[in-house]
Formats: sequence, C-alpha cells, structure tokens
Amino acid sequence: MAEAPAGEFGLIAALAELFGPSPPEVILGIGDDCAVLDPGGPEYLLWTVDTLVEGVHFDLAWSSLRQLGRKAVAVNVSDLAAMGGRPAYALLSLGWPPHRDLSLALEVGEGVAEAAREFQVAVIGGDTVASPLGVTLTLTLLGRVPKEELLTRAGARVGDGVYVTGPLGEAAAGVEVLRRRLALPPEVREPLVRAHLDPVPQPAAGRLLAAKRLASACIDLSDGVASDLGHICRFSRVGARVEAARVPLTPALTAAARLLGLDPVAVALTGGEDYQLLFTSAAPEATLKKLFRSAGLAAPTRIGEIIPGAEVLLTGPAGDRVITGRGYDHFRLDREQEPG
Amino acid sequence: MAEAPAGEFGLIAALAELFGPSPPEVILGIGDDCAVLDPGGPEYLLWTVDTLVEGVHFDLAWSSLRQLGRKAVAVNVSDLAAMGGRPAYALLSLGWPPHRDLSLALEVGEGVAEAAREFQVAVIGGDTVASPLGVTLTLTLLGRVPKEELLTRAGARVGDGVYVTGPLGEAAAGVEVLRRRLALPPEVREPLVRAHLDPVPQPAAGRLLAAKRLASACIDLSDGVASDLGHICRFSRVGARVEAARVPLTPALTAAARLLGLDPVAVALTGGEDYQLLFTSAAPEATLKKLFRSAGLAAPTRIGEIIPGAEVLLTGPAGDRVITGRGYDHFRLDREQEPG
Repeated sequence: MAEAPAGEFGLIAALAELFGPSPPEVILGIGDDCAVLDPGGPEYLLWTVDTLVEGVHFDLAWSSLRQLGRKAVAVNVSDLAAMGGRPAYALLSLGWPPHRDLSLALEVGEGVAEAAREFQVAVIGGDTVASPLGVTLTLTLLGRVPKEELLTRAGARVGDGVYVTGPLGEAAAGVEVLRRRLALPPEVREPLVRAHLDPVPQPAAGRLLAAKRLASACIDLSDGVASDLGHICRFSRVGARVEAARVPLTPALTAAARLLGLDPVAVALTGGEDYQLLFTSAAPEATLKKLFRSAGLAAPTRIGEIIPGAEVLLTGPAGDRVITGRGYDHFRLDREQEPG
Repeated sequence: MAEAPAGEFGLIAALAELFGPSPPEVILGIGDDCAVLDPGGPEYLLWTVDTLVEGVHFDLAWSSLRQLGRKAVAVNVSDLAAMGGRPAYALLSLGWPPHRDLSLALEVGEGVAEAAREFQVAVIGGDTVASPLGVTLTLTLLGRVPKEELLTRAGARVGDGVYVTGPLGEAAAGVEVLRRRLALPPEVREPLVRAHLDPVPQPAAGRLLAAKRLASACIDLSDGVASDLGHICRFSRVGARVEAARVPLTPALTAAARLLGLDPVAVALTGGEDYQLLFTSAAPEATLKKLFRSAGLAAPTRIGEIIPGAEVLLTGPAGDRVITGRGYDHFRLDREQEPG
C-alpha cells in the first residue's frame, strides 16, 4: 500500500502513477483541465468530468435545482474554455435520493438543458442512480480544439504578463454570506450569491486567446489564483509575482470582505469557484484589452508577471510573501481555508 | 413543471425530451447502452458513464475498495461490449469522505488500474471531490467500433433466437446472501458473492458478435432479462418468449434460491448485475455455439425467441405469463424487487 497522499493534489499524483503512462494518441492525460486526445484530423478531442455533491458543492437550502443543473454544465464548460476548446457533447449522471419527489429531478434536468443550449452542448446520454444521502451530479463533456490552438498549463515564460478575465473572489464571498446568513444590502449580497449559485464560464475568452495564439499558458480559476497560478508555474517551471493592488475586486466583494473581517485580496486570491480564466501572455496589455473589447468581451486585467523561480509571490505594501498553493483543497479540513 | 415521471425509465424519457434532438453526427443519443458519435473515418466513438454509490451499489462491509474500483471499470466495459465496441479511455471521478484515510482512496485507484490494464483501457484524467456521506465512483469510458459492426437494441426480428452469454442470477443471489448473512457451504456461497463483488463483463463476446455480424440486437444485462429484453423488444418493436426450462442456472444459484425461498428462474430473470450479454440472432444455435467455442469463449445459451407483439412472455409449466419490465429499478422502493 502506498503512503497517505497529501491532500487532493497528492491523491491525484498518486492515482496518476497508478494508472501509468498513456498511449501516444493521448496528448495530455491526468493533470490539466481536460484530457486531450488526438483522433486524427485537424482537431484534438478535449474530455473532462466534474462531480457536484450536495453539502459540499451546493446546499439546496440556497441553490435551486435548476441552478444546480446549470452549474454542472458551467464548471465543465470552464474546463474546456481553459484549453481553448469548444464544448460539444455531454453525458449526465444524476444521483437522486429515492425518497425525494422524482419530478423535482426534472428541475435539475431543466437547468442542464438550459445551460447546454446556451453553450451549444448536446446532452446525449447518461445514467440515473439512487443516492440515498443526497443529490449528486456528474457531467462529462467532450469538445474540440484545432490542434495548433490548444492552450495548456505549460508554456508560461519569464516576462509574460499574468491576466485574469474578470473580478475574483465573489463566489467565495457569496458562499460565506449564505452560510453565515449575513444581512447585507441587496446590491452587495446579490452579485456575490449569484456568482456562487450560477457561475459564468468564459468559453468565448478561451476561444479568442486560442484562435489568436495570444496565451502562453491558461487555466480556469476553480480553486483560486494562489492555487491555480501555482499549477501554471509548476507545469511551466517558472515563478510568478502578483501585485495586490492590481487584483480586480468588485465593490460588493470589498464591502462583504470587510463585514466578514477578511482581507478582500486574500478572498480574491484564495477563494475558489471564480470560473474566470487565468492566463499568461507576452502580448502588450493594451493589445489584449483592445482585442477582448472588439470581440465584445470584458477586457482582461493584468495582475502580475511571470518571474524566474517556482513560487507564486504576492507583492503588497509589506513586501513579497509566498502564497503558492493557498487555494481551496477539497480534502483539507482546517476551517481557515476559504470555501470553494 | 413536468409531471412526476414513473420510475427510472420514466425519468430518463422525460430528461431525453428536455435535452431535445441531437445534432446529426450523434448516431444514437439517450436510450442505448452508450451514446454513439460519428467523428468521421471508419469507426464510431462509443461513450458511456456509470456511477456507483455506497449503500446502493456496494457496501464496504463486503466489498473491498479494490473490488469497487474493478467494478466501476467492469460495468462501463459491459456497456461498450453490448454495442460491439472496444474500450479505450476512461476518466474517473472519485467522491471520498474527508474524514476517511486518503491512502485508502488509493486502493480504489489500484482496483481501477488493475481492471483498466485487463481491458486495455487508459485512465487519462478525472476529478476528486469530497463526499462526506459516502464513497461514490463515476467512471466514463470512450471506445470505438467499426461503423458497420455497431450493435444496438433495435434490430431484433420475429423468429430470431434470444441468447445469453452465461448463467444468470448469481450476482442478485450473492447480494442477498451477503445482506442476510446466510451461512452456506463455500461452493455455493463463493461464486454468488464473487459475481456480485467482482462482475466479469463480456467484451470479447461483444466483439465476436459484432465482427461476424451475427447479432440482430444486443444489450448488457444490468437490470435482468425481464427488463433488458423488454428494452430490445421496445426498440425493435417485437415481443419475446423466454422458456423457463432453458434459463441457464448454476448449481450455486439453484441451491441458494431454495434456501432463500425464491424461485431460481425468477431470480435469474429479474435480478440485476449479471453483466452477461443478451442478444438476438437469426443464426442457427449450433453455428453460434461453435463460433464462440472456437474463439475460446463459453457457448451462449438460447433461452427463447423473438415473436410478434410487444411483451416479454415467460413460458413455464403453467403456461405463458408476461414479465416485461420486471427488472431492477433504482427508484422503485418496494422490497419485493430483487436487489441489483
């Protein structure tokens, strides 16, 4: 028997070792946002799976079943977006408690169907199982990307800018607002709660970066910048410096963080579930901003740069400190970590 | 909101309606063992997903974590076998309770890796999530089949023989032996328990039938003959007659059924989890048996024939009775149904 792996990423590394090397047509196996297969022809197949578990990823006291269905599609679309891909097909495996009204399971299906239409995904099969202790939702998604446009976590180079496609931390603050039942003004509460319950993935931004070959590395922000930028650094064998003053914060996040007694920049960098894209690019910031705007997308924000080394540094008023890997880990139980 | 769907199959039909029509390159969507995609070229892609839930599909009091990992691969390989396919790639989504020792999660991985090697499947990615209330295991599998060899549930014709690739009911009896903690002689107990804990899918039989174009319809026996032959009849717009005296029973099943006070033929036809193939064929029985034997496989058993109509009939000493759909349904809660 192997030694106990350290946390989620230790477990994934240990599993990857057990599963051994992949055949040559597998371009990327365990470790990136999607598995990448070469089926012959001009495109790669991208393949991902994500599971949402009641009581961990959602609470039906807050989340509607329709939102849950939408979210299952969104988080998978986000994995494809990170690799520059277009989603195409999905299978849905729904675990439903036998004593709950089965007609309510259709509300989950309605949410899946709605988001699938939005992202042009055809849901073409799946599985339904009894799950006595809570609702579970697994969606697996197949998509495509032209071979020369594939984005991965590897490829960031020293000097590249580090960018995010939108504001950070809102979903992490939103789940905390819900958990603590905080009474907040609606203009603070609503965007945060919505970011958690109905996240918006960024496939158009991923496609734009891919088609224009402007990103040297890309990942979707599911665990937070500190953790996810750490993955880019590890795969690219570089370090990164993030400037605290450049981290995009919304007024709602700043207000909520103060009420929660938290540093808004810490929430933004270590909270999870942003589902924005984090990418690195050698292109000038102005070029990227102009390109995004002319495609009808919000301009990305440069939050830092790639540097030599192996750590993610946060530069603030008090100097640099290392924040590598300080994201949400599903298997770390200490209560200090931000919710994801 | 839609009306409450009747049971698992009602739910699946209602979901299929929500998800709407598939694009033209989707050869088969919801309803068969796998989704079938045409990526161009000489082969179809086959894609399936199956979830195993603690307390429903397995009990860790009986099943080892390694067996659980093996079973997740086996049930998915069985879905591909039913369509004549060769499995190729898998993603694993593992839900693990945060308070359980993470090193034990690797035992599940060892079982997955072992079965994956056995069936030549490369595990190339997945997801790990916290699942506080129990272990869950979702495996999604991609495989291939030459286009002209695809087996489906549709295609059975009146006069075709109905065949199964091996004995039935052992897994259903095995789970009951475990639940009731029956003390049985080892030669009775062990094959039954093994059939439940470590099922053996039949991809070689599926490939043989596909390559020789000998099956007019095929399905894998996950819910039992009464239910699964019902699916073939529905998709093929025919009926079927099963002869009770021809249903292949092992001595262990017959002995256990007597001790349990059950009719062994009823256990064999309505129990689930056989993971044998059920197929229809116009070929002479002797031809099929010879072909299987010369490929090193156990000869299939002819258990009945396809007839006009829409029902599955069981012919026994007392005449014919309708058994359509009397298989295991995950959402039926009456205690009369056989375990699956």
